[in-house]
Amino acid sequence: MARYYEDVTVGTEQTLGSWRVTKDEIVDFASRFDPQPIHVDEEAAQESIFGELVASGIHTLSICMRIAVKEYYLQSENLAGERIDRLRWEQPVYPGETLTVRSTVVEKSPSDTHPNRGTIVSRIEMFNQADERVLHLTVTAMFKRRSPGDV
Amino acid sequence: MARYYEDVTVGTEQTLGSWRVTKDEIVDFASRFDPQPIHVDEEAAQESIFGELVASGIHTLSICMRIAVKEYYLQSENLAGERIDRLRWEQPVYPGETLTVRSTVVEKSPSDTHPNRGTIVSRIEMFNQADERVLHLTVTAMFKRRSPGDV
Repeated sequence: MARYYEDVTVGTEQTLGSWRVTKDEIVDFASRFDPQPIHVDEEAAQESIFGELVASGIHTLSICMRIAVKEYYLQSENLAGERIDRLRWEQPVYPGETLTVRSTVVEKSPSDTHPNRGTIVSRIEMFNQADERVLHLTVTAMFKRRSPGDV
Repeated sequence: MARYYEDVTVGTEQTLGSWRVTKDEIVDFASRFDPQPIHVDEEAAQESIFGELVASGIHTLSICMRIAVKEYYLQSENLAGERIDRLRWEQPVYPGETLTVRSTVVEKSPSDTHPNRGTIVSRIEMFNQADERVLHLTVTAMFKRRSPGDV
């Protein structure tokens, strides 16, 4: 059952799923997109303020997206992501950690210009296995309406 | 020559570098982090509002990060990214496009708590080969100070 704009209720809170991040994945991602020593060089990372390798922030954001897409957006009639606001990295992510995503629908509104679309604003948070929040953000996405209405 | 907090001047504008994105890279990234049909399935993408495969927004953000890290942050004494604000995706990115990143330093301030650190806020924009802006964001990063001072 696809989820349309009408099926989304403001205030709904959901745990979307989890992902265990390995050292290999941290180094592989960062080698391509964020090759700073703290993400790709174990010896350099030991000398850093983190004391060991940590995942790139863009990598942890990508993991968050993977969980949200697989567990939520793939079952939705969403057309595109529009923007992210107030993205904060709060805790470093180390190899072997298990990350879990929670989402809360904070706002919805029909499109001003397209009667068959609506905008959904969600608060996304990701936690590690110790239930410390590692990042949070607000994402705005465009969904299809099941019953196109007046704008 | 490493770039410290003191070496960064508010108002400095720089073109950081470019990256050509291929269809293989679009499908490879999205298969792992954002497996929506418009990013991984050519036939489905043709039926979409985009008319062909488009890069995942998290992928274009990762490309932007790769250029900024290689051309700027790797030559800097930066300690960590702290946050991203007002990330907007403005244009789809299609296979074969060449993306170029420009950065502008908008603000700097010494740390309230660590006399050896300072915060740099930069405006980051990425353009395609037609000089259309595909995304923009504001990033806040922590840099080392060459001469730790009073907070």
